[in-house]
Amino acid sequence: MSYRIGVIQPNIVFGDVEGNMERLLKLVNALREWDLLVLPELTFTGYVFESREEAIEYGKRYMDESLKWMENISGEYGGGVVAGFVEHVHGKVFNSAAIAVDGEIKGVYRKIHLFYKEKEWFDPGDKEPFVVDVGKARVGIMICYDWMFPEVARILSLEGADVIAHPANLVYGYAYTAMKARAIENLVYVATVNRVGRDNRAGMDITFKGGSQIVSPKMEVLYRAGDGEEAGVVDIDLSLARDKRYTKLNHVFKDRRIELYKRLLKP
Amino acid sequence: MSYRIGVIQPNIVFGDVEGNMERLLKLVNALREWDLLVLPELTFTGYVFESREEAIEYGKRYMDESLKWMENISGEYGGGVVAGFVEHVHGKVFNSAAIAVDGEIKGVYRKIHLFYKEKEWFDPGDKEPFVVDVGKARVGIMICYDWMFPEVARILSLEGADVIAHPANLVYGYAYTAMKARAIENLVYVATVNRVGRDNRAGMDITFKGGSQIVSPKMEVLYRAGDGEEAGVVDIDLSLARDKRYTKLNHVFKDRRIELYKRLLKP
Repeated sequence: MSYRIGVIQPNIVFGDVEGNMERLLKLVNALREWDLLVLPELTFTGYVFESREEAIEYGKRYMDESLKWMENISGEYGGGVVAGFVEHVHGKVFNSAAIAVDGEIKGVYRKIHLFYKEKEWFDPGDKEPFVVDVGKARVGIMICYDWMFPEVARILSLEGADVIAHPANLVYGYAYTAMKARAIENLVYVATVNRVGRDNRAGMDITFKGGSQIVSPKMEVLYRAGDGEEAGVVDIDLSLARDKRYTKLNHVFKDRRIELYKRLLKP
Repeated sequence: MSYRIGVIQPNIVFGDVEGNMERLLKLVNALREWDLLVLPELTFTGYVFESREEAIEYGKRYMDESLKWMENISGEYGGGVVAGFVEHVHGKVFNSAAIAVDGEIKGVYRKIHLFYKEKEWFDPGDKEPFVVDVGKARVGIMICYDWMFPEVARILSLEGADVIAHPANLVYGYAYTAMKARAIENLVYVATVNRVGRDNRAGMDITFKGGSQIVSPKMEVLYRAGDGEEAGVVDIDLSLARDKRYTKLNHVFKDRRIELYKRLLKP
């Protein structure tokens, strides 16, 4: 059951939303076709905010435009598009990622584990991770630092995800190793998509190092980006993610011993 | 807070319990001192059983001797010893690992995720993972294929483990990558200890490839064994595992969103 995942690893310039969208479009146009296209966290605005107020301001100004851009791309090319954006609703502001399918937003995931100063800029996500149908595949979303919490990929996979779209703004390499574990422990495909470029503002100076990767349920790295701007596609076999048997006698979900896992939910 | 972990990576000959104990002792004697010594899964007997009946037979014949050996080593040298053995109690037979501290068995962990034919040979463990004090460290135990289930290392870490002792009989390399994830996602030390040698019987022919590793909470590989018999020690700093802050603003346990994790325990 063949399925094509596209990766967009852009350079993002903080605050230059129009310019970012142009660069993104150029990368998108370089790809021929895909079933699911994954872009980084906070794709349109950049990452380092000065304050919660600034994040709200960006949400107010650019949220609709960001979602519209995703709808347009997914409508024009067909298939699904996942990208991170600043979500502003009812006085709250979230580090979110939307999923647009065939021209329409089908879901918005709000990052539930905020990293470092994001805790000052954003509200923590308030909804459980979920899965959306994108053509033949069931797709779940997690964002960047969610990698540190195996609970997220596990929930998405239990909910039926074949592919986990993982928009990120990563600096260190730990997540790439951890996401290999997420892939095999859930027998899912994982697409971690990072940005490149530098945010140097508000007392922080962060250079994002790319390295976007797609990992198979067998822990194979099917795609590995360099440290510059790039776009690429990988064909995957969805049936690999549907068969949850690790051996003839081991089913990775049926083997779970939930009656012995109660400690996981204790405060 | 310095602490020394010892690794024994033996060649094990199926059924030659006396010979295995001699070889183990030789490896143990090659080490000077340790606070915690970790040996492989099913250290004394070997791995491939012909049947449940045979596993029971080995449990009946060698369980007491195996536990006594561990008590002796931990009593004579001081510190803790973790090793896998066949546990036979009340007509049940488990793939277990005991922890002996200063001459006394302090706990027995029964593997809760059985791999492949182990399901024919053993009963699945019936108790939650737990943690035992071994000198200055709190030590949790998981066995081999438990690596596939992030729930186990998470529970042990939530229970306060500084070090996860992970006796194994591994053939593939996936677990080594996954255990790096376990280390960082819980900010614990992980000692995965494998055997070498070959079990060729009962229609199975398995060569165990060693490669035992100790990983730090920073995902550094502090010890990596070769593919032959060996013993080694590593000094670790327990304070690294006690500080669960990943950044000044991120605490790996307090950041968990258990109210959004309910799916983990749903059938």
